[in-house]
Amino acid sequence: MSQLPAAAANAPSIGDPAPPPELVHRVSGQSLPAPFYVSDEWFTRDIDEIFSAHWIFAAAEAEIPEPGDFVTVTFATRSIIVIRDDANEVRAHHNVCRHRGARLLTEPAGSTGTIVCRYHSWTYGTDGNLTYADAQAPDFDKTCFSLRPVRVRTIAGLVFICLADQPPADLDDLADIVEPYLRPHDLANAKVARQTDLVENGNWKLVMENNRECYHCGGHPELLNVFFPTWGYSDTDAIPPRLGPVMSRYRQATEELVSVWDRLGLPHKRIAQLDTRPTGFHIEREAMDLAGESFTLDGTLACTRLLTDLGEARLGRVSMHMQPNMWLHITSDHGLLFSVIPLAPDKTLVRTTWLVHRDAVEGVDYDLDRLTSVWDVTNRQDADLVELAHSGIASPAYVPGPYGPSEFQVEAFVNWYVRALRGEHTWPQAAEDPDGSHR
Amino acid sequence: MSQLPAAAANAPSIGDPAPPPELVHRVSGQSLPAPFYVSDEWFTRDIDEIFSAHWIFAAAEAEIPEPGDFVTVTFATRSIIVIRDDANEVRAHHNVCRHRGARLLTEPAGSTGTIVCRYHSWTYGTDGNLTYADAQAPDFDKTCFSLRPVRVRTIAGLVFICLADQPPADLDDLADIVEPYLRPHDLANAKVARQTDLVENGNWKLVMENNRECYHCGGHPELLNVFFPTWGYSDTDAIPPRLGPVMSRYRQATEELVSVWDRLGLPHKRIAQLDTRPTGFHIEREAMDLAGESFTLDGTLACTRLLTDLGEARLGRVSMHMQPNMWLHITSDHGLLFSVIPLAPDKTLVRTTWLVHRDAVEGVDYDLDRLTSVWDVTNRQDADLVELAHSGIASPAYVPGPYGPSEFQVEAFVNWYVRALRGEHTWPQAAEDPDGSHR
Amino acid sequence: MSQLPAAAANAPSIGDPAPPPELVHRVSGQSLPAPFYVSDEWFTRDIDEIFSAHWIFAAAEAEIPEPGDFVTVTFATRSIIVIRDDANEVRAHHNVCRHRGARLLTEPAGSTGTIVCRYHSWTYGTDGNLTYADAQAPDFDKTCFSLRPVRVRTIAGLVFICLADQPPADLDDLADIVEPYLRPHDLANAKVARQTDLVENGNWKLVMENNRECYHCGGHPELLNVFFPTWGYSDTDAIPPRLGPVMSRYRQATEELVSVWDRLGLPHKRIAQLDTRPTGFHIEREAMDLAGESFTLDGTLACTRLLTDLGEARLGRVSMHMQPNMWLHITSDHGLLFSVIPLAPDKTLVRTTWLVHRDAVEGVDYDLDRLTSVWDVTNRQDADLVELAHSGIASPAYVPGPYGPSEFQVEAFVNWYVRALRGEHTWPQAAEDPDGSHR
Repeated sequence: MSQLPAAAANAPSIGDPAPPPELVHRVSGQSLPAPFYVSDEWFTRDIDEIFSAHWIFAAAEAEIPEPGDFVTVTFATRSIIVIRDDANEVRAHHNVCRHRGARLLTEPAGSTGTIVCRYHSWTYGTDGNLTYADAQAPDFDKTCFSLRPVRVRTIAGLVFICLADQPPADLDDLADIVEPYLRPHDLANAKVARQTDLVENGNWKLVMENNRECYHCGGHPELLNVFFPTWGYSDTDAIPPRLGPVMSRYRQATEELVSVWDRLGLPHKRIAQLDTRPTGFHIEREAMDLAGESFTLDGTLACTRLLTDLGEARLGRVSMHMQPNMWLHITSDHGLLFSVIPLAPDKTLVRTTWLVHRDAVEGVDYDLDRLTSVWDVTNRQDADLVELAHSGIASPAYVPGPYGPSEFQVEAFVNWYVRALRGEHTWPQAAEDPDGSHR
Repeated sequence: MSQLPAAAANAPSIGDPAPPPELVHRVSGQSLPAPFYVSDEWFTRDIDEIFSAHWIFAAAEAEIPEPGDFVTVTFATRSIIVIRDDANEVRAHHNVCRHRGARLLTEPAGSTGTIVCRYHSWTYGTDGNLTYADAQAPDFDKTCFSLRPVRVRTIAGLVFICLADQPPADLDDLADIVEPYLRPHDLANAKVARQTDLVENGNWKLVMENNRECYHCGGHPELLNVFFPTWGYSDTDAIPPRLGPVMSRYRQATEELVSVWDRLGLPHKRIAQLDTRPTGFHIEREAMDLAGESFTLDGTLACTRLLTDLGEARLGRVSMHMQPNMWLHITSDHGLLFSVIPLAPDKTLVRTTWLVHRDAVEGVDYDLDRLTSVWDVTNRQDADLVELAHSGIASPAYVPGPYGPSEFQVEAFVNWYVRALRGEHTWPQAAEDPDGSHR
Repeated sequence: MSQLPAAAANAPSIGDPAPPPELVHRVSGQSLPAPFYVSDEWFTRDIDEIFSAHWIFAAAEAEIPEPGDFVTVTFATRSIIVIRDDANEVRAHHNVCRHRGARLLTEPAGSTGTIVCRYHSWTYGTDGNLTYADAQAPDFDKTCFSLRPVRVRTIAGLVFICLADQPPADLDDLADIVEPYLRPHDLANAKVARQTDLVENGNWKLVMENNRECYHCGGHPELLNVFFPTWGYSDTDAIPPRLGPVMSRYRQATEELVSVWDRLGLPHKRIAQLDTRPTGFHIEREAMDLAGESFTLDGTLACTRLLTDLGEARLGRVSMHMQPNMWLHITSDHGLLFSVIPLAPDKTLVRTTWLVHRDAVEGVDYDLDRLTSVWDVTNRQDADLVELAHSGIASPAYVPGPYGPSEFQVEAFVNWYVRALRGEHTWPQAAEDPDGSHR
């Protein structure tokens, strides 16, 4: 039976007989106490016990289509090379020379035949093996100095990595669930139309929490043209009166699309296993407003060359998120990937990648500005909100406040996080876990 | 009987049986040991036990003349809203939303009908009560989520706040003493002609110490046109020979003005209760050099519309300072307020506010540059000196040095500070306190 | 018998019965564990136990030729004035006023008749004695407030300082060894042609390690025109095949120059006492490639006015380095001094000084750009490599890696450093020390 990731088990406090009081006394339904968001100590634990122990989203395969193509993923003091090796496999290595520790690749992305250290020219293959080290003593054994490997797993064109020796064991299961949703969109054969890096002035958890509810969507007027702000309201909740008209449109659009989805054999049911497993996630297919085709101001296509062979433009969106650091939206014409990279307690990188069909031609099939403008402005609006949250929480006057009903995914993210730090996630899940069976 | 402020009593070390050796061994007549000025630990204690436990100067009422007008005061991680409420009362609230902690008002000043959180639109009245929170569960009780209040007290147009639950009890007494000096100048009915924020690269205590002596006034050639550098020398001290001529002018000007002050019924005696009470202060009325009317290069008025009904231009200056964070000068034509806001161990904000009569017209009654240039340049000179002091004290080669006789108010400030950290200030003061009776 | 420097003996951990595990378990032949390079704790120990306990290189006498000329040397929070006093002696004082601690001289270099504090005009002679302090109490004794002195020693025009009360006792011995190499080049009578300050984004030890090997010299194409990359390879090592041709040229050039050196009576033997004494060092005279005269692209002179009376342009280079913070190269026409000043765990200042004969005229005898361009670009290349090393080592994936044979001086520097922290250096050295006799 799968246990705690080993890295987490080795980390300073997990498994200690007396976890810190913040962990023990967390009150359900409320935001976390301030130290989780602002202290150096909890940031270090987050890096060690969350980002170095769990599967994290690293890149799209479309970013590294050819052998030698690589991206680097750098969070806190760690840097990882994700590279397609000469055998066309995706690999990941720690970006640290085995000689005197120099960082090897300093560009965020590129292509290279070998990985050469700029310091003393130690040279590694794309598979991480040391192939050249000049002027060594006769007993020097190159095979002892391969790059330190990082576990990697691709799911429907998405690349996940895990720095732990014993990664959470539930990723295959997750892949089984989400691939039917993702595969029709052929992300592995897409190309990157644009990628942006936005540094937000707030803790990474505030970035995730911001994304896990649409209670704040009034701050996103551009997005709201096509994104139903009914997201997050369950059928049993009283819907705020201001959302009445939009709820009617949402129900009508859903009804229309369900018949399309069913005809095309596209799964669309919401599956949410947010805080009950090591790799918490949710996935669903949802209708969109207006033309319902894409994230544009009127909902019509942003790219006329579709990123699917289904021949249907109005498919709504597949949306997925995975704890701790990613979410995505895919429409018929493009994919939108978001990764969350912690840099410091109060600095978080949000990397956004727009994918289109590899044969789509800029200026012919899509206008880059039209493709990206809605989420560009939405990202900046969210960055402002995250900074407000971080600066307010830093005050000793802050006390955890109550989540409303539509913020249930924020609560679930916080639950997942606290349980991860407590080491409570296991796989396969214990039979007595009431939320543990997902099928 | 009033005791220690509760916040101070709860703070990490106050009341501990064994205070740190720096507190115990402070040598009278010398500058403080280096850690008080440069360490993170003492900065945290200063924020908790001084700035969050004592009355601090926040703003002039003239900055918020109408209901809904506000300023924000932000020091270290705290931010406070000072706002005139709909009932025309000055109130102060912690600038933290009760929902998920977002900072509410981000501008340094402004005017608003309600306090609306930009994150999820939770809305508070100017009195701090939560008036709107969308889409909550049926049992949600708005009355439980008012903004956390901060105590506020106005004295003759000056707004003081205290973050402690039990503020020092001597502010009413202080008000009784200083209001007769301040009230003739009608600060509450003034308007802000200009406000500047200058970040000095030094500890806040070095900013205060810099202001508490004129031994360094040789570095202020512009100010010295009208400011007698005899300030700080007592009659019994040997006056340095270089100050002989200026002392003669000072005595003559004082003699002339005392008769004016007495005729107009203006109190002018120096009252200094600097280190004997929770809210240490000093106030006096002093003559000025040259024309003696205002802080200009020749001492003539900077604003022809006087900020008093006394009909007399040559009144010298009322000067007051209050531990830990303010001083002011008021002449017949304008008021000059200084507040000291700690940002980091080595960063301090000095906010300077020039007040003139609300009916004074820029370009007609006053030229803004002439009004502000003397103290603008003086502030910048002081910022340079504070930075020199901070960078030198940071060296392990620094040892506390001796205060000269004219630096007695620096010594008193340091005394007040050490006694505050030790929790030795009480009110009403114990009978055996030799300096405790101020009347 | 000389012991540990007193400052080191007083420092937090030296002499403790249980040194930290990193010190005990350092594996020979490998780079240091990461905390030595990246942690605040070890940086503080380096400042206290290395830079405040050992002799460090401060300046060239040529930087302060006249009485009143000074430079300031500032590392971490310390600042030192190195000044030529009115009696023409080189002195060093802590750059801290004895009154309220202000930093006295803020320029990196200059000339002054007296040292006047900008704050309250306390005035010190160039010898550090307090000569003026206005308005003090009658019992004030100026003789108690001299500037705190720093030990200083000049060797052949180089100024070394030591902040410890009991500096390492071996500097006279070192002077006896190195002066015969240096004196023919008359550095004390040179002038500064140019001085550059480059802040490298890495730990100071990585800067030193970078300089202690030429294994990385492939990254220095400009330097390699005249600098034989055979440096660091011993005769018994297998030379990498790529270095075969250059080794032949090196041997021929050396053979030619040895006869010149011997004819002129110039010592040239390599003396390396790198890790066996408190003040570890090495010195040698070596041939250079191409014209062999100077650090130019073709090896011809950069300055036609020689910095020696020997009348010979092709002398190769005298090279010396001294633990912990300097190295130099001197050719017949100019001297090149490098000092390493730690600013933060990941920030190091490298100050480079080009010296030419005091009568050399810019534009006539030398072109400044031609004189400085090779090492300017080499310094920038090294800064890039140091930053790569620091950022990689900061990763938890870093493990100490093996030094190759040609990196023996890096190993020796690390050995010296670890022994210094352990307090193992003594002088005169114990008889049983196998490497302890240097003649």
